[in-house]
Amino acid sequence: MRALLYRDHTLTLQQDYPRPVLPAGEALIKVSQVGICNTDIEITRGYMDFAGVLGHEFVGVVEEISHQQGASTPHALVGKRVVGEINAACGKGTCPYCQRGMPTHCPERTTLGIVKRDGAFADYLALPVENLHVVPDEVSDDEAVFVEPLAANFEILEQVHLKPTDRVIVLGDGKMGQLAARVLALSGCEITLVGKHSDKLLLVEHLGITACLVENVDDVIQHGRRRVDLVVECTGSEQGLELALRLVRPRGTLILKSTVATKSNLHLAPIVIDEICVQGSRCGPFMPALRALRQKLIDVRPLMSGRYSLDDGLSAFQYAQQKGVLKVLIHI
Amino acid sequence: MRALLYRDHTLTLQQDYPRPVLPAGEALIKVSQVGICNTDIEITRGYMDFAGVLGHEFVGVVEEISHQQGASTPHALVGKRVVGEINAACGKGTCPYCQRGMPTHCPERTTLGIVKRDGAFADYLALPVENLHVVPDEVSDDEAVFVEPLAANFEILEQVHLKPTDRVIVLGDGKMGQLAARVLALSGCEITLVGKHSDKLLLVEHLGITACLVENVDDVIQHGRRRVDLVVECTGSEQGLELALRLVRPRGTLILKSTVATKSNLHLAPIVIDEICVQGSRCGPFMPALRALRQKLIDVRPLMSGRYSLDDGLSAFQYAQQKGVLKVLIHI
Repeated sequence: MRALLYRDHTLTLQQDYPRPVLPAGEALIKVSQVGICNTDIEITRGYMDFAGVLGHEFVGVVEEISHQQGASTPHALVGKRVVGEINAACGKGTCPYCQRGMPTHCPERTTLGIVKRDGAFADYLALPVENLHVVPDEVSDDEAVFVEPLAANFEILEQVHLKPTDRVIVLGDGKMGQLAARVLALSGCEITLVGKHSDKLLLVEHLGITACLVENVDDVIQHGRRRVDLVVECTGSEQGLELALRLVRPRGTLILKSTVATKSNLHLAPIVIDEICVQGSRCGPFMPALRALRQKLIDVRPLMSGRYSLDDGLSAFQYAQQKGVLKVLIHI
Repeated sequence: MRALLYRDHTLTLQQDYPRPVLPAGEALIKVSQVGICNTDIEITRGYMDFAGVLGHEFVGVVEEISHQQGASTPHALVGKRVVGEINAACGKGTCPYCQRGMPTHCPERTTLGIVKRDGAFADYLALPVENLHVVPDEVSDDEAVFVEPLAANFEILEQVHLKPTDRVIVLGDGKMGQLAARVLALSGCEITLVGKHSDKLLLVEHLGITACLVENVDDVIQHGRRRVDLVVECTGSEQGLELALRLVRPRGTLILKSTVATKSNLHLAPIVIDEICVQGSRCGPFMPALRALRQKLIDVRPLMSGRYSLDDGLSAFQYAQQKGVLKVLIHI
């Protein structure tokens, strides 16, 4: 099959890559469409030391399911259009993280296109049946590839009790920041999206989200007098983190959303003095994301910047790294 | 009056420093005894840019109270032995932090011996009446000077729901780590104190707290297989912070307790990937600390390393910075 393979520090399009071999309990999925995530790009810069097929934001159709001994086989999924949670836990009864309902933190997990499991930029992928969610008819393929990153932003609401009267700043007007602002706006909060690109900031203005160029951010917090309850850091930069600590109020919360390979040089005293809670945040629950898309509560379509075929996958990756580009989709 | 003054990068003993002038609503306290805190030492290294009389861990006797117009004066405090919370909030009805019950975060606060308010290494100090707590007879002066740092460790339990079945590691066997371990041990948790000094570690062994030299810490977490629910970082060092991130389990909590002037160079990806909550923690509630001392739940006396008179205050500061020394008390 075809596959976009990252190996030996190089991304190549393979024509005869072997189809995934199905372990018991896993589904073979014919991939329809995949989104390029910043994590994919970070991996091609050395993040996670991953070698294999990239891609984890997919929608596809279940083609085959491998029988799990003794389990009743969910034949019903074959032929269904699905999205899939990307962390495949060990599934052993003895694992303390799986036992405690934290499969995304299972130390033996594999992660689609990120850790020890080939990903979605290919004709086929494999995932455990329990990772799959049927996509409702009301949600298009274009929308469905946003379920995974949307879910990662619903994770913030799993972690923090955001009150409708809270004030929120999202730092970074890229893909992650755009989705974070849209998800958190559902809470009724007063939200400001802060970024460097007026064209990207324009995308939220009709949503009741305040847009603000980073050079004007002091106006939002009235020069320090009205620091906000929650800041979501989606820039992944050292400057973003320092700005976040300046914007969040004492006893407020700072969500770290970006996974980057580099170190940050950080003054920690403000975290202690202001008793800030710095909360790391990664993958999240798929069902809330699917429900929000089905109810048309979030329109992700304005975030699409380009569409490529898998055969042009290398060009898609180049385009995705250009300034001003948001989500790039690859059609399989 | 006599006072240990830090000014122009120098600590000196003044003989004729002016007594505090009492604003309405404040008490004049004749100081009996004061503890030297690491924050005092950090200030003499440039932390907080403070100039004035140092010291904030005190016990003393109320000598006089300045009338607050229209308020019923708590005459009852005069002659009483007291300890005092160190943050003096603005007290204005319009301050959002005071209104929301967060006076320790009032942006206009002064802090005894730390921010814009002369401290306790002097014959007299002044604090607002509402900051004072009468010390029960069962608590000695020696114990009472530990109320402030003990309260700072009860703050951890205000911030985090520590379950009796949780596993905890306290990093750092100095004054703060010793107190943190003792406070958290009251919860019934399995606690390990990790440090570099076997003599200091010995102090907790009879308390049911496991002591562990830092080079053996991998045994505690069984080489990564049993990372703990809560880590309290009391070393204030970059290495301490990196170790803390290695010891805390996914979705666990890391408490930052040390205020230091320096920056830390930190890999932030583990915080995101493991969804760690990094919680800054500063001053805490005095009443739980007083109750614990009164009930003899915590014995702080083994943590005293030396006792000086105010006239020998400069020697006391030198001694407090020597290796192996824990709490140094200054008698006024």
